[in-house]
Amino acid sequence: MRAVAVRRGESGPQLVDVPKPDPESGEALVRTLRVGIDGTDHEVIEGTHGGFPDGSDYQILGHEAVGVVADPNGTRFEAGDLVVPTVRRPAGEPNDYFARGEPDVAPDGTYLERGIVGAHGYMAEFFTSPAEFLVPVPDEFSETGFLVEPVSNSEKAIEYADASRSPFEWQPKSALVLGNGPLGLLTLAMLVNRDDFERTYCLGRRDRPDPTIDIIEELGATYVDSRETSVSEVANVHEPMDFVYEATGYAPHSFETIRALAPNGVAALLGIPGDHMFEIDGGDLHRELVLQNKALLGSVNSNVRHFEAAKESLAAFPDWFTEKLVTGVYPPENAEKAFETGDGVIKTVVEFDTL
Amino acid sequence: MRAVAVRRGESGPQLVDVPKPDPESGEALVRTLRVGIDGTDHEVIEGTHGGFPDGSDYQILGHEAVGVVADPNGTRFEAGDLVVPTVRRPAGEPNDYFARGEPDVAPDGTYLERGIVGAHGYMAEFFTSPAEFLVPVPDEFSETGFLVEPVSNSEKAIEYADASRSPFEWQPKSALVLGNGPLGLLTLAMLVNRDDFERTYCLGRRDRPDPTIDIIEELGATYVDSRETSVSEVANVHEPMDFVYEATGYAPHSFETIRALAPNGVAALLGIPGDHMFEIDGGDLHRELVLQNKALLGSVNSNVRHFEAAKESLAAFPDWFTEKLVTGVYPPENAEKAFETGDGVIKTVVEFDTL
Repeated sequence: MRAVAVRRGESGPQLVDVPKPDPESGEALVRTLRVGIDGTDHEVIEGTHGGFPDGSDYQILGHEAVGVVADPNGTRFEAGDLVVPTVRRPAGEPNDYFARGEPDVAPDGTYLERGIVGAHGYMAEFFTSPAEFLVPVPDEFSETGFLVEPVSNSEKAIEYADASRSPFEWQPKSALVLGNGPLGLLTLAMLVNRDDFERTYCLGRRDRPDPTIDIIEELGATYVDSRETSVSEVANVHEPMDFVYEATGYAPHSFETIRALAPNGVAALLGIPGDHMFEIDGGDLHRELVLQNKALLGSVNSNVRHFEAAKESLAAFPDWFTEKLVTGVYPPENAEKAFETGDGVIKTVVEFDTL
Repeated sequence: MRAVAVRRGESGPQLVDVPKPDPESGEALVRTLRVGIDGTDHEVIEGTHGGFPDGSDYQILGHEAVGVVADPNGTRFEAGDLVVPTVRRPAGEPNDYFARGEPDVAPDGTYLERGIVGAHGYMAEFFTSPAEFLVPVPDEFSETGFLVEPVSNSEKAIEYADASRSPFEWQPKSALVLGNGPLGLLTLAMLVNRDDFERTYCLGRRDRPDPTIDIIEELGATYVDSRETSVSEVANVHEPMDFVYEATGYAPHSFETIRALAPNGVAALLGIPGDHMFEIDGGDLHRELVLQNKALLGSVNSNVRHFEAAKESLAAFPDWFTEKLVTGVYPPENAEKAFETGDGVIKTVVEFDTL
């Protein structure tokens, strides 16, 4: 079958011909419809994140997928069911984190990640998965369902932020998303749809006209150009933010965010930067965290509960939003094109089939 | 009546003679038994934290008190009731935070703090307080009740930490307290008494023999000398910590703590440092927060719920602990002595009266 993979020692996606997988006991065989591409996929190709499956000289890419059950193989599914797979799998023997349905908090070394860490991804005509890692989605998600996975990551981050503020009556009104990439825009759309955030902002570094700025403004949010207003200045120039969501992977942002937060505010950090030395006024930042009850939360991955929540969020997005977000749909033969970046590109998808 | 205060332009505690306060409607008059001294009191004396009451050329010190209701003045109390006062009071008109019983999350400018920010403290023969800010305590707290306030601050910090981990099954085993001052030792005793923390550590920078190290070890915890093992090295030298409680006010600790935490760990920050510029590998710290779901939470002050919880914690402390913790009890005439620091001094108290 056709698959899009990166080969050891190379740094570009290639169309490869690999054997169609056979589902083992407890696994279903899924016919892939669409697989989304995000920053992590680029890092996998560049070799800066994740790693190849043991003994394999290639890694099939992709961790944001939607597909149709082709062979339920005795699992709870029926042929034709639309499903979205989760990403993490146990490394070796199943552990307590997986047993509890919380692989997203499993520590390093106890998990693999499909398409990222030591396991093949979903960018192939078919994939197999244990049924417990397949989340059923309604048929109307056949084109957009690959967005359930990235949205689920933000569901988790927002759930953690809410939980961290649960000991008191938190009444957030303002939210800032750092980063106008696809994850930033998806999260902005989620925050706009919440009843509590009356004012939303999204920070980027793009000149107008720009399709991401158009989306930000069509969502009713305010675009903040980081070249004009730094994260440290946002509270003064705009307003202090009750919630900040960081998706830039630019390390200074995660510390400057302390100054952007309102009293009792919380920031969820999702970016994954490389090493980066810089100077901070750590005394001021520490004092600000303490005296204003502020919080910084790191968040990675997500579990089935967050996938379920993501289905609700995705269903609530206006059609125009997902249409404008997805700027390119390519067949696997054109996968290289799907991995190209540029000012007109927001979210791209490799499409293997339709429902 | 006698009171211990600091005068404008001076930087030492003095015995002053001030009018006995008259309770207003809704307020009770309290006869003070004991008032504890902590780092904040020293900052108030030095003029680096808080501020004088409007129009007053002196400020009565002290915010950790226990006393006896002398005149209930129509409130829910009876004469002879033992009470502990909370610290924050509305600045001007009562606001929503106070109405909800959550003055501890009220933003700057909306509150005063008795003995700290713009209001007289409790270090006087009598004080008045609205009944809602007086927490009844049992008679056996007549000598130790002044510890309810500092313990309540840690109750809040630990409550926040637990809440931040509530979205998943957090099973903490190891805890590290940064700082072997009185607040650090009180918190260590609280953590030792929890069922979950099997191993506890306390970091300081003192040579043996030292009374704080004796207490740490008698509690069953491990003393970590920061001159031998830095916060960044704790995870390697000892073990990664599920919970870190920071009470040193040394800003680098709050950032190095990210490295001390175990996956899914959380740090509560309570120190209040001055400005302090330094360099960090912010990329590494940011990445570590994200990929391991770590959290940093600032926490200040506490509310009546935390005072109630603190009563339970205080009752559970072994007698030897509070006896060793309190290294000096002084009459108000010797208040200067109570404010002296030194290697043999842990927690000191000004005693106005006994039950």
